[in-house]
Formats: sequence, C-alpha cells, structure tokens
Amino acid sequence: MGVPATPYAGSTMTFDLATLVQPSTSKILLVVLDGLAGYATADRGTELEEADTPNLDELAAAGSTGLLDPVGPGITPGSGPAHLSLFGYDPFDYHLGRGALSAAGLDVHLDPGDVAARGNLATIDGEGLITDRRAGRLPDLEALEVVRLLNAGVSIPDVDVVFVHEAQHRVLVVLRGNDLDPHVDDTDPQMTGVPPLTPMAQTRAATHTAEVVAEIDRQARAILADQPRANALLLRGLDSQRQLPTVQERYGLRAAAIAVYPMYRGIGRLVGMDPVGPPATIDEQVVLLKEHWDNYDLFFFHHKPSDSAGEDGNFETKVAAIEALDAVVPQLMAMSPDVVAVTGDHATPSQMAAHSWHPVPVLLHGEQVGRDQVTGFGERHCLHGALGRRPARELMPIMLNVAGRLAKYGA
Amino acid sequence: MGVPATPYAGSTMTFDLATLVQPSTSKILLVVLDGLAGYATADRGTELEEADTPNLDELAAAGSTGLLDPVGPGITPGSGPAHLSLFGYDPFDYHLGRGALSAAGLDVHLDPGDVAARGNLATIDGEGLITDRRAGRLPDLEALEVVRLLNAGVSIPDVDVVFVHEAQHRVLVVLRGNDLDPHVDDTDPQMTGVPPLTPMAQTRAATHTAEVVAEIDRQARAILADQPRANALLLRGLDSQRQLPTVQERYGLRAAAIAVYPMYRGIGRLVGMDPVGPPATIDEQVVLLKEHWDNYDLFFFHHKPSDSAGEDGNFETKVAAIEALDAVVPQLMAMSPDVVAVTGDHATPSQMAAHSWHPVPVLLHGEQVGRDQVTGFGERHCLHGALGRRPARELMPIMLNVAGRLAKYGA
Repeated sequence: MGVPATPYAGSTMTFDLATLVQPSTSKILLVVLDGLAGYATADRGTELEEADTPNLDELAAAGSTGLLDPVGPGITPGSGPAHLSLFGYDPFDYHLGRGALSAAGLDVHLDPGDVAARGNLATIDGEGLITDRRAGRLPDLEALEVVRLLNAGVSIPDVDVVFVHEAQHRVLVVLRGNDLDPHVDDTDPQMTGVPPLTPMAQTRAATHTAEVVAEIDRQARAILADQPRANALLLRGLDSQRQLPTVQERYGLRAAAIAVYPMYRGIGRLVGMDPVGPPATIDEQVVLLKEHWDNYDLFFFHHKPSDSAGEDGNFETKVAAIEALDAVVPQLMAMSPDVVAVTGDHATPSQMAAHSWHPVPVLLHGEQVGRDQVTGFGERHCLHGALGRRPARELMPIMLNVAGRLAKYGA
Repeated sequence: MGVPATPYAGSTMTFDLATLVQPSTSKILLVVLDGLAGYATADRGTELEEADTPNLDELAAAGSTGLLDPVGPGITPGSGPAHLSLFGYDPFDYHLGRGALSAAGLDVHLDPGDVAARGNLATIDGEGLITDRRAGRLPDLEALEVVRLLNAGVSIPDVDVVFVHEAQHRVLVVLRGNDLDPHVDDTDPQMTGVPPLTPMAQTRAATHTAEVVAEIDRQARAILADQPRANALLLRGLDSQRQLPTVQERYGLRAAAIAVYPMYRGIGRLVGMDPVGPPATIDEQVVLLKEHWDNYDLFFFHHKPSDSAGEDGNFETKVAAIEALDAVVPQLMAMSPDVVAVTGDHATPSQMAAHSWHPVPVLLHGEQVGRDQVTGFGERHCLHGALGRRPARELMPIMLNVAGRLAKYGA
C-alpha cells in the first residue's frame, strides 16, 4: 500500500496552462546549477552560502528569491524528474526510465517498440560473483574496444542488439524487434560478492524480452571471458520510448539546451529543445548562447560541475564550481534576457556525496519581478524570499508570466 | 498540450512511496505534544513561546523547523485525523468513524463484521423527550452501574451486544453477529426537547442492523426506566472495523506507540504500531522507550497533558505540561535516535479551550537535516524555518528520507 493520490486543498493547478499562452518576443534564460543546494552545519554554511558570488548576489538583490522542492516532500530526485520539474512537467506524470534517459543523452532515437537499458561493464570472478560493478571505471579506449566486441559478437534471432558506449564503464543497450516489452527486472544487483541477477519478467508480455536479456548475459560473458576487467555486463532500467509534449506545444517556446554533458542535452530533447553545440566548456556554452540568441525563446543553460563536486564529497570544489558559474553571469546578462532564473535541479550536499531531498534556492530576475528583501543568493537567504517555498514545477509558469507570455485568466 | 491536471507537487504524492522504501537500521523518534500549538495575543506569546524549554530550543537550533497544517487550511482536526496526518496518512482518504476510534481508544478489538457505535447515556422525560444528552455528565461509578445493567439486560437473538464504559456519560456499544452493517443513521438528534431518532438504514443491507438498534433503544429504556438521570441511550457514529495499511506495509517500519492515554495507543494500533506498556507517567514512557529501543524502528511518543490543559483553558498548566516534556528530552536524546521530530497533532489554544485550525510548530533533528537560522522552538520562531509550512502528512516522508529509508526517485 502506498500514499494515496489526493490534492492538497490549498494549491492545485488543474487547468490547461496552454490556453493562456500568448505570443511574445521575450527571452527567457534558465540557468541550472546541477546539484546546487546543500545544507548548513554548526561550523559552516552551505556551499552556495560560502561561495563568493557577487554577480548572483546582485541578481538576487535586484529580483526575488525562494526555495523549490524538486519532486516532492522527502523525495530525493534523480536528474530526469528533477529537470522535468524545472521545465514545468509533473515528474509523477512523466516518468523517465534510465534506459530512455541514457538514450536521450546519447542522442540515440528510440522507435516505438524498442527497449533500452543502461548497462555497466563489470568484473566477475571465476565463480561468477561480481567483484567490481564498474570494471575499475576502465578508460574509454578500453571500453570502446569491449563495446566493439559486444556489437560484433552478440547475436539474437529476430532481435537487433546495439551497444553504444557512453563513458568509462557506462553503456547503452538497445533491443529492436517484435514483441519486446520493457517490464523486465534489472540484472544489476547493485552490490558485489553476488552473481548478476537472472532477468525476471514483471508481466507475461515481457517473458520473451527476459529470455533475450538472459541470452545477452550469456553471450556477453562468453565474448568477454578473456577481458582483464570488463568481463560481464549488468543491465538496469529497461525502458521504452517516451513521448513527452514539447515546450513548444505547452508554452509556445522555441528552446535551446546548452549543456556540456550529453545527458542534459538529451533531457532537453525529450521536451522538444534543440541541443546546440555541443560545447566542451562553460565558455563555449556562453559563445553558443550568444550565437543562438536570436533563434530561440527559452535557453536552458546547464552547469554540471557543482553536482560532480558534490557527488565527490568535495566541499571546496563545489564552492569553486559555483563561483565559476558566477563569473560568467555578466556575459549572460549582457544579452539582456527579459527573465532570468538561476536555480538547481536538486541538492547534492557534499556532506552526503549524493543527491538529497533538501530544497533548492532560486532567484528570479526581470523587469516586472519585483524586489524582496533578500540581498544574497543562498539557501537561508532564499527562505525569506518573495517567491516562497513551492514545487519546482511552478517556476515555469511564473517565468512565462514575467516574460509576458501568459494572458489573464478570466475576466 | 497544456499542464496536465495534477495536484500540487509539494503536497501530493500521486505515486506509491512504498516503492522507494529501502531497509535501514536507523531509529526514528516522533514526539507528539498533544494540542501543542496556540496563538499569541498583544500581551502574551503562545504557551510554547512562554514555556522555558532549553532542551527543545537546543534541538531546534541544531536542526530545522517549520509549521504543519494538520489536516487542511482552516480545518480544526479531531485526534484521529490529526494523528493519521502525522503518521503520513491522508486523513481525507482514511476516515475513522467515531465508533472505530472509540473502540481503538478503549483497546476493544473489532472483528470484521462487528459494528461499533459511540453511545451517550442521556435523560428523557415522561413524554420521551430528551432533557439532557449527557445525563448530567454523571459520575463514573454511577455510569458503570448503568452500563452493568445494560450488559446484563439487553438481549437480542443472534447478536451479542456489549457495552463498555468510557468516562462519564460516554459508552462504547459493540454489536457482534451475522449480517450486521454500519450504514445506519444516528439515534442521537444532537439536541434536546425532541425524542431520540428512529434508527434509519441508509442501505438495504443495513435494515437488519437498524432493527437491532431500535430494539436496543427499546430495551435500554425499559431497563433504565427507574434510573434518576441515565434513563436512555443515544447512539452515533455507527462504524465497522477499519483496516488501514500499516506503517510496516507503507514504510517498512516496526513501530511502537508509547502513550499514557488508551485512545492514542489505539490510534497507533490502527496503523500497525505495537502499544507498549501501558505507562502511567511520562517517566514510565521514558523507561519503555529504553526497554524497547532495540525492537522497533519508529517510536511514537505521545504527551497528553498539553492538550488537557488547553482544553481546560488553563494557560499556565499548559506551559507547565510543555516544560514537563522538555525535561525528559535529554533522556530521549541519550538513546541517540537518527531522526527526531517534535511537534503537535493540532492546536489547542488555552484562549479557546478547544482544538483549533492553527498551524503546529515542528522541529526536525538529525545528522543530515541541516540547520536553519531558528534558535528557539515556538510558533513564531518556526515561521522562519527551513521546513517551511506544509501539510502535516509531509513530515513522515521527510523523516524517512533523513533516516536513510527512501531510495532516489528516478534516474
């Protein structure tokens, strides 16, 4: 039994926002510092509070601030649902499996009927027990060779199996054929010292797919038997194509995703954004923003290093990553966007070295936003902001309105 | 396409939280000061604000605080829904009838098929009109004798009728037999000067039960004809056993209810908690907590005196009741719980001498909670807390997450 579905009396949005959308030439800039939020302890503020961010502080002072709950109370979000919320999509309505996310991130287009999974190249010992779920995070060149062997060797009757290398041990696996169904449990047990799991069908319709996955597991072990470390393949997050309404359909926005990491270009593409570039650095991201300024209405500017540093448990590196974003703010503002929001997709406190449930600070800047009394950009500053505390998916309607893109509701 | 019809993300959970629950050895302590909240006036703070609570203040300073709305905006909750909210159950989905609550509170176990009702011993005049719905709030000893007469005298073919005295005029009535159905209207008209209502079946299936209730009414009047004031019985809230999903099923928690008052042990039992003890004092509650520390994951520690004092309209006694809880906080913290929440189930402002709709302060303490800037535990302090203001039922998912018991949502 789970928590049942009921709205909170105070605050539902049960109408079609698209009915209010009106045309505009305004420009919206959404800057996402991945994993931005943290938490304070007795001896130290959060990473954002400790960072020296004069430019973000100035925006916060001139605009309004608040705190966003990415997905729901007490819920630690993955990257997919966290970004969908920022794009205004209810992440409970639009669930993205790992396979679909990985495919999107690699720009691999899934057709209806395809099944995709996230794969880990892994190491098993002589008794078939997993000794390293990531095969020592093997170098890309070594992994590419392993992936080539898998593509050449794995053969299943009536099913095309394609392996696409992501980075290090990470591989996307796509199955294409008739009667495939993604409702198959992971083979990745998420621990070492045990064998890979036998793939189990969750539904009768997935029986065939479970057999295919089992056969891939057998063939992969045979093909990789002589590999020094990548001698097995663990699969998780089997998923199929996800068709989401686009930001053009929902908000009338032509949108560009400007992200260094493929995953975030992919998430943008899932909601109809054009991934421009790809850029390799934040400076190239700024160049792309300028180049494409006239072509789009919404710019999703994604900054990954804050999350990576948080995941590594490195407070100082996360502070530096936030400061690196602050340093380009003047160049972003030089484009004179009508609305700027700066926020995170979720918290990645360096104390936890992981995503967390904590709320995320947000600042909103634009001519008609109005000023609150907050003069700095930080978690505890934003507690007192005029935007209050709200679900992350409420940010997009507010940005649209400040951008002059929503008509009045009712007479 | 527009924004789909979905409830407010901050407060709804349209998915099954149980799918995120993961095992842990962490300990969660939920301390409920019944009726904790109050309201400030020009000359005086709330009872909690005026109380001297150094230990709770210290927890508030080291953790995060906020305000909870027990059931919904502007709604004054009863004890049942108020506690269900704190346990993470939407009180609109899980309605508890008066009969089921009374049975739970008296530790009377209802079997499937049983029907329970709350009864009032009442006074009727020679023409059968009600003159006092509470029989002068007769003393317990007098009421117990009346209840003994009813148990000895009332006899219905094929239906066991059991009367259990609660306090003063209040009686629980349990019917046990075949083909019973609780869909029968009250016989209590909730006013004087009129006769008791004829029990009406709301459905065809309840016709037999309505006849049984009518026969109980007739026999009770005959048996009690010579009583000086308790010469009739009014029934309301006919109800059957409520099977709620347990906290074990929903959250994977083995839970203990540590409460002096039977009603709260009963509410705990309704959600699968083990009522330990019973304790007679707060010191015995502390002893029970220590004794059972290794056996449970969640401890519901209930403190009644704050509500009783509020109901009596006694400000100073309520202050003292809060201070009495504060005094045992060091012993509670000595158990090193991973997560502690201290809150109330609802407000009982002593100015009103009744439950009210006002929000309830909450403090959350644990290693990964993070600190806000609030340094004391009080209604107006908690307004500035990092937990913000939210429905009470959002507390449990947050506690679960801080306790390491919820996996990440989505990839």
